[in-house]
Amino acid sequence: MTRKALISSAVALCLAAVAGVSSAGEPVDPISPAKEINLAQAELGKKLYFDPRLSRSGFISCNSCHNLSMGGTDNLKTSIGHNWQQGPINAPTVLNSSLNVAQFWDGRAADLKEQAGGPIANPGEMAFTHTLAVDVLQSIPGYVIEFKQVFDTDEIDIDKVTAAIAEFEKTLVTPNSRFDLWLLGDTTAISEQERSGYQLFKDSGCVACHNGSALGGTSFQKMGVVKPYVTDNPAEGLSAVTGKDADRFKFKVPTLRNVTLTYPYFHDGEAQTLTEAVEIMGRLQLGREFSDVENAKIVAFLKTLTGDQPAFALPILPPSSDKTVPPTPFE
Amino acid sequence: MTRKALISSAVALCLAAVAGVSSAGEPVDPISPAKEINLAQAELGKKLYFDPRLSRSGFISCNSCHNLSMGGTDNLKTSIGHNWQQGPINAPTVLNSSLNVAQFWDGRAADLKEQAGGPIANPGEMAFTHTLAVDVLQSIPGYVIEFKQVFDTDEIDIDKVTAAIAEFEKTLVTPNSRFDLWLLGDTTAISEQERSGYQLFKDSGCVACHNGSALGGTSFQKMGVVKPYVTDNPAEGLSAVTGKDADRFKFKVPTLRNVTLTYPYFHDGEAQTLTEAVEIMGRLQLGREFSDVENAKIVAFLKTLTGDQPAFALPILPPSSDKTVPPTPFE
Repeated sequence: MTRKALISSAVALCLAAVAGVSSAGEPVDPISPAKEINLAQAELGKKLYFDPRLSRSGFISCNSCHNLSMGGTDNLKTSIGHNWQQGPINAPTVLNSSLNVAQFWDGRAADLKEQAGGPIANPGEMAFTHTLAVDVLQSIPGYVIEFKQVFDTDEIDIDKVTAAIAEFEKTLVTPNSRFDLWLLGDTTAISEQERSGYQLFKDSGCVACHNGSALGGTSFQKMGVVKPYVTDNPAEGLSAVTGKDADRFKFKVPTLRNVTLTYPYFHDGEAQTLTEAVEIMGRLQLGREFSDVENAKIVAFLKTLTGDQPAFALPILPPSSDKTVPPTPFE
Repeated sequence: MTRKALISSAVALCLAAVAGVSSAGEPVDPISPAKEINLAQAELGKKLYFDPRLSRSGFISCNSCHNLSMGGTDNLKTSIGHNWQQGPINAPTVLNSSLNVAQFWDGRAADLKEQAGGPIANPGEMAFTHTLAVDVLQSIPGYVIEFKQVFDTDEIDIDKVTAAIAEFEKTLVTPNSRFDLWLLGDTTAISEQERSGYQLFKDSGCVACHNGSALGGTSFQKMGVVKPYVTDNPAEGLSAVTGKDADRFKFKVPTLRNVTLTYPYFHDGEAQTLTEAVEIMGRLQLGREFSDVENAKIVAFLKTLTGDQPAFALPILPPSSDKTVPPTPFE
């Protein structure tokens, strides 16, 4: 199959796949506001998300690497973990992550709840254990009360901790981007250049993978379809989960929602700008060299995808008690 | 002079000093809500306070060690700096820090504005330079606009950066503690045990140093007045600033406001609980061994000093541009 035929068939396949959920005949849907949220559980999860006591050091929280002030990322190539360890991969945004088919770049967690437990116990990230994290929470009277209110139990466990964090993360959707307003019928919401960037985004095949309401997050694709992607990053992607050689270098397609905020780009964080990312994606995934004008059009479109950012009061955490085992950042 | 006479004269001196500002005849005043705030400047300062791009790593912000979710501290003995360096001293709370006579434990910064520049350029903390931090801000269009709005200038400089952070920090006062409500006339706001703890706090001499609206922050006192304080921490206190041998081991008296939230205690963070801190203070500063009942009374009083915590929406930071030099956490 030629490159062009390969791409065309991929586009056709994906367009067909999303046809049932398209908005106004488009392969992209507006982001829906959060629905069916257990509010008390999400409020508890918000505190846990910001609580560095879930880490061994008492210094790293979920929000450290998925910073909600910064597009749900840390804006670093790869993250900083316990004892300043360099992380193996770019921290994906938590924004709209409830729309992902699976979590992590390699999809090794089925859902947000399963994901939330990962970094806590990862020696290179928060470097704690689920048991110790739960022990800390159980020693904090404010948490004991709140878990009781939410889960009707005196026993905190990691299952409830991650359920609460996941419920909070479900609220982190970003509706009302200018592009969504346009999709919803406001013809003045985006400019002519932005609209033509969207058209080019569709016509050239970007939308084959970046579709659905998150413009991504729904499939795993090889990084380097037409030409190989050269990187020092050792991550192997989906094959690390499936064990299949055919899945090597397949990564979950990242969402393009809020992409202006989620730099740097790709699983290795090696593309610092959208211009660079669009150029590389065109060349390696689509076999197409965008002109400067074309690249600028697509970038202009991508900049319309910034939606409502999280809007809530900074959570105030319940203090530790005399029984709480203090963190050990330097041991 | 005997111990007792020494303490009595210190108490008399301090009571006299604060007599002019006492509330309802008490040596402690209620915290006043923030007044005369330049709101636009404080809003800009709030963003800067939460922005890790003021650090070399892009990972550490003011809020990392003076975490407003946790009483304006990091709740660690000593803080974690760039490259996981262990800080030399316990991070004091930023809450009510505008009431301090000077900033840092040794008072080396005259005010909040002067303080704010310190950690940015400290190689053991944010490890950046003022020039590089300003260059980063100048490359971020959202900041350029906001500095223009606030300071009517196209040129960002460190003076304006620290002025904005200081203005935000002036808003971080914590009125409406139960103790303040009692001071203001609500006789039901504190319990009989808490009131008798306050009486003991006054009668035994704690109030000699912990007075004024912040219950501290107004003077430098020797750590270990009656008996020496034994610590591995090498900090020398005020003498590092004045060069006077008489100022060795004199530290700024910490505020007791929100002390339930600001554990661990002392400049070396070696006291993990209030019970422990009260015991040590009594023995070393006042030459007094509190009984368990007395200690519990004072602790009960101290727990009434938690005021309104910061209440504002999590700031959303303006994104970097293609011109922003990315942070270098691992170089």
